[in-house]
Amino acid sequence: MADPITSRGAAEDADRSDPLAAARSLFRMPDGVIYLDGNSLGALPAHVPAAVADAVNRQWGTDLISSWNANHWWALPQRVGDRIGALVGAASGQVVCGDSTTVQLFQALTAAARLRTGRAVLVTDGANFPTDQYVADSVADLLGLTVQRVSPADVSFTEDVAVVAFSVVDYRTGELWDVANITERAHQAGAVVVWDLSHAVGAVPVELDAVGADLAVGCSYKYLNGGPGAPAWIYVADRHQDAVRLPITGWHGHADPFSLEQVYRPAKGIERARVGTPPMLSMLALDAALDVWDGLDILDVRAKSLALTDLVIGFAASELPEIEVVTPREHARRASQVALRLPHAYEVTQALIARGVIGDFRAPDMLRLGFTPLYLSYAQVWAAMQLLRAVLAEEAWRDPAYQRGRDAVT
Amino acid sequence: MADPITSRGAAEDADRSDPLAAARSLFRMPDGVIYLDGNSLGALPAHVPAAVADAVNRQWGTDLISSWNANHWWALPQRVGDRIGALVGAASGQVVCGDSTTVQLFQALTAAARLRTGRAVLVTDGANFPTDQYVADSVADLLGLTVQRVSPADVSFTEDVAVVAFSVVDYRTGELWDVANITERAHQAGAVVVWDLSHAVGAVPVELDAVGADLAVGCSYKYLNGGPGAPAWIYVADRHQDAVRLPITGWHGHADPFSLEQVYRPAKGIERARVGTPPMLSMLALDAALDVWDGLDILDVRAKSLALTDLVIGFAASELPEIEVVTPREHARRASQVALRLPHAYEVTQALIARGVIGDFRAPDMLRLGFTPLYLSYAQVWAAMQLLRAVLAEEAWRDPAYQRGRDAVT
Repeated sequence: MADPITSRGAAEDADRSDPLAAARSLFRMPDGVIYLDGNSLGALPAHVPAAVADAVNRQWGTDLISSWNANHWWALPQRVGDRIGALVGAASGQVVCGDSTTVQLFQALTAAARLRTGRAVLVTDGANFPTDQYVADSVADLLGLTVQRVSPADVSFTEDVAVVAFSVVDYRTGELWDVANITERAHQAGAVVVWDLSHAVGAVPVELDAVGADLAVGCSYKYLNGGPGAPAWIYVADRHQDAVRLPITGWHGHADPFSLEQVYRPAKGIERARVGTPPMLSMLALDAALDVWDGLDILDVRAKSLALTDLVIGFAASELPEIEVVTPREHARRASQVALRLPHAYEVTQALIARGVIGDFRAPDMLRLGFTPLYLSYAQVWAAMQLLRAVLAEEAWRDPAYQRGRDAVT
Repeated sequence: MADPITSRGAAEDADRSDPLAAARSLFRMPDGVIYLDGNSLGALPAHVPAAVADAVNRQWGTDLISSWNANHWWALPQRVGDRIGALVGAASGQVVCGDSTTVQLFQALTAAARLRTGRAVLVTDGANFPTDQYVADSVADLLGLTVQRVSPADVSFTEDVAVVAFSVVDYRTGELWDVANITERAHQAGAVVVWDLSHAVGAVPVELDAVGADLAVGCSYKYLNGGPGAPAWIYVADRHQDAVRLPITGWHGHADPFSLEQVYRPAKGIERARVGTPPMLSMLALDAALDVWDGLDILDVRAKSLALTDLVIGFAASELPEIEVVTPREHARRASQVALRLPHAYEVTQALIARGVIGDFRAPDMLRLGFTPLYLSYAQVWAAMQLLRAVLAEEAWRDPAYQRGRDAVT
């Protein structure tokens, strides 16, 4: 492990030896912006506008309905799914893309519970992203289950647990959970695990196949940079595919979709997790955005992510006494964001945004900074910390322009 | 009612007096194509590529996360919903856009059944689009209901019916059902009605509020020309909004979404039908596509639609004896497509496509032609009929190139 970066010169040195330095040119970024909100909405890959223009003008406008075959629209959900699967340790044929993260969560939790009929409990994390908790409650209500909220930090599963539904990363604190260990413990109790990888995919290495994962979902518009509301994805491990019963039964998931039969017969394999016609323009943008990953090593991404967050955590700990670092210091427990607790966090966030440092505020008192190693330099992150120090030292956050209005979006 | 058009000259006359003639220039259409498949995928409005480029380059690329407020992304699902609502007789605040048609169907059927707990039956149409039937079966399975398949042509609802789920238009035959009458009869039996307007919206006038509709859904990529997989929409009548319990509980539908509470409290009004982050690029394309409707009168669209389908039906009846017209001749029972039953329908469809007339094949023996009055001229439709006659007279469909391969997509 390298020493933390504690000077501008060291940051510039790190940029010069950065194996990911070339990736920055693959993205567009407005001048003067240090974008620490890629964990909400990833930046625009530079080649995506041309790909979307082709999708609109040629594929839709000229090829029209023939695009389903001529431009391989029909195969796109699996193609994109396999590309995402490669980033989360899933062999091909286990991931399919489409619909929103909420919908995929609903699909996964319902299907998982149906693999364990007779068990009464659905476990989720009381600090899980709200949608994850809402969907857990809704699925439990539909299927007659009881929801238990427990922390992934302290789990001992009883034999009445049907489903364990956790996020790989705590969306507020950035804590990274031990996917392998929790999966193993859940399996020992006979439960099925549904992992939400929204804040993990593209940021930390996850090995779904290797840990014996059951089902997983994730979004595509954070560290995958697929664009606003890019369609989400679902993973169903090979061994479960012929048994899972997904509740949203669209004709694209039928065993013989073009027969247009009256009765649903789920397709073999991951195709049964297809639903209806997916949002093609958004999915084609995502498909293009994934090109960025060709030839990249997720371990390089992880190493830079840890170095960037080490820089931030070290700086805050040594230079900013009014700040409490909420994110774990241990690498094994840290994803790719840093949560800082501080007085006037809302106003400080606004003051930083006004200075070109885009982060977000989490109620009641947290500044949340996300780090996408593909398009951030060490020097930028160093500069962001200097601006944060100045905002605090000068009490710039007292400016009336930064007082509370509308909150930002996750 | 005007006399049917029975000559090329009459078709050209009709084009000269067509109040919708100017709308054709609002669309891009490849040279040499007569597009009779707008009931599968609507054509590209000419101004949409620039709108999508703006969405990608400026909104995503430059404004990044601030677009949720700065570019009104947060309000977009309701804004687009209201614009669609205006085309189906829904006062504002009753329609929201997002997710696929399948997902919206699942939401609507589950919510409708929950309005009638204690009743045991969910009615759908055995000729309904497969997804509609599959979702009916899935929702019934989740809620412990029994599905009855009956035709909208012959319904008498008993008092054990919780939900009646029909499409306004039969997707194969193009038959238009009597929405007002069926709604009234279902209400007399105490049932809730869910209408699927996928093949109706933008093609035939529907007055959801006036007929006392309960819930409805529809797609946006057919006669609304919103682009491939454009997000679908859901209508919940004002009087049901505080009672409906939608199963897919994403944080966007929460009463106070930015509070990020643990427990779901549905928003007041139609906002509770929001789910998670919708596919923004696809939704922005749809929003732009809806500009086409500004200043248009759906009654002009309906009149031209009937004139075009009269032309086709009249020509087939008088000139093409090998063809059976499946679509009802009565205007009140006809939507905006014509289904023709004929020998070798698959091969004839392919031969027409090779000649620039894009329609689609429906197993086992049907040629399905859709008519979008906004971008079709009478002369084009007349020419398409001449090409169909020639393909049949010359037996051009015998060409080995037109023999059966992969079916087209609905």
